[in-house]
Amino acid sequence: MRVRAIVAYDGTDYSGYQRQDNAVTVQEALEAALARVTASDPGSVTILAAGRTDAGVHASGQVIAFDTAWRHGLDDLHRALNAVLPADIAVLEVKETAASFHPRYDARSRRYRYSIYNTSIRSPLERRYSLHVAAPLDVEAMQRAARLLIGEHDFVTFGQPPQGNNTVRRVLEAEWRGESPQLHFDIEANAFLYRMVRSIVGTLLQVGRGEWDVGAFEAALAACERSQAGPTAPPHGLCLVKVIYQS
Amino acid sequence: MRVRAIVAYDGTDYSGYQRQDNAVTVQEALEAALARVTASDPGSVTILAAGRTDAGVHASGQVIAFDTAWRHGLDDLHRALNAVLPADIAVLEVKETAASFHPRYDARSRRYRYSIYNTSIRSPLERRYSLHVAAPLDVEAMQRAARLLIGEHDFVTFGQPPQGNNTVRRVLEAEWRGESPQLHFDIEANAFLYRMVRSIVGTLLQVGRGEWDVGAFEAALAACERSQAGPTAPPHGLCLVKVIYQS
Repeated sequence: MRVRAIVAYDGTDYSGYQRQDNAVTVQEALEAALARVTASDPGSVTILAAGRTDAGVHASGQVIAFDTAWRHGLDDLHRALNAVLPADIAVLEVKETAASFHPRYDARSRRYRYSIYNTSIRSPLERRYSLHVAAPLDVEAMQRAARLLIGEHDFVTFGQPPQGNNTVRRVLEAEWRGESPQLHFDIEANAFLYRMVRSIVGTLLQVGRGEWDVGAFEAALAACERSQAGPTAPPHGLCLVKVIYQS
Repeated sequence: MRVRAIVAYDGTDYSGYQRQDNAVTVQEALEAALARVTASDPGSVTILAAGRTDAGVHASGQVIAFDTAWRHGLDDLHRALNAVLPADIAVLEVKETAASFHPRYDARSRRYRYSIYNTSIRSPLERRYSLHVAAPLDVEAMQRAARLLIGEHDFVTFGQPPQGNNTVRRVLEAEWRGESPQLHFDIEANAFLYRMVRSIVGTLLQVGRGEWDVGAFEAALAACERSQAGPTAPPHGLCLVKVIYQS
């Protein structure tokens, strides 16, 4: 049986989602939990995921899939996984899915949220999940710049393709929400380039601080030159919120 | 000059506010930062505080006071302190105050907030600052029980006095706010007994889960017996939000 699950994690203490040698990753923790619960050989368990989030990036709606011979009911599997997973990873939902389901290839779009805490003084209680920005931000200008991202564009200014060389992506939503001090940038696209959300946010912040006008942002997007982007925002403000499928 | 400051901290990695041997405390971190910034002998710096929060308890509005010979302006002192403090402690506000000001003795009341994340599945992104409660909660019943706390009562059921043996306190507000999954219990009193908020919250949760009715809560308060309280809620959901002074 193939199982599809929604997973949340605090990415602070992980070297990203994807398994790698000599680093603690979310994938490795999930595969170890699944192997333990199903009494499988750890090397034999493989979990597919929708998004390979970077080191330090969080998720509240990562989607994974795996095959298992589990026979005790999905509620029991769900409970067992959460019982053995560390406190910074949890399985939110578990269901049976088609044997052909692939969380990455079948995804129609992905939503990310980047959170900013905009006050003159940094906040110890917000620091883990928000970027602190001390300078006052012109949110209205950041909103106008963000709207330029909507639609199909070559986004090579803001990132590299994870594979191949197609850098065209379709952005469905790009919107600032909330009020200072708590600002959120929500972006949904069919897919993202590597570091794309963080590069866009870092560049929008140049606009918000008045270092760039909206026209400069538009020109950077149109330039199709990676070197034209502003700095890449740090990972800890970013969260993979949702992966959207046809059904 | 005596300085009064508002301090925020993430209490996760501290053995409470108050300085103690062989343990990392918030007071020690603040005193070390002040000594470093003012180039004083570390042993010579003493900081007074309004509330001695327990190990693991957070603060967004702790009030401290200290004497200093600093001569470069308060904004510079403020910036310098935040530059040397660790990321989990920040000074939010600094001002000069009367030489006689004492943050604990002069406080008219204190406000605490206890945060609960009420969902069947634990959340990795809420776990640091909220208690996860999986059982459905009857918030209306917890609200009715909470209201019984308002006014002057002997609260010995819910805690021990930090010194002396007066266990009478005056509760000014006791109110549940928010909606599931995010619930907050706000309580303001002239002063609190040791562990009082956590003991009250643990007992209110018995009511919320339907293990106690509101009458049992009322009887526990009236019994004036420490053994009549429910379990003490863990520290990580608790935050010292504000200390209120006459002026």
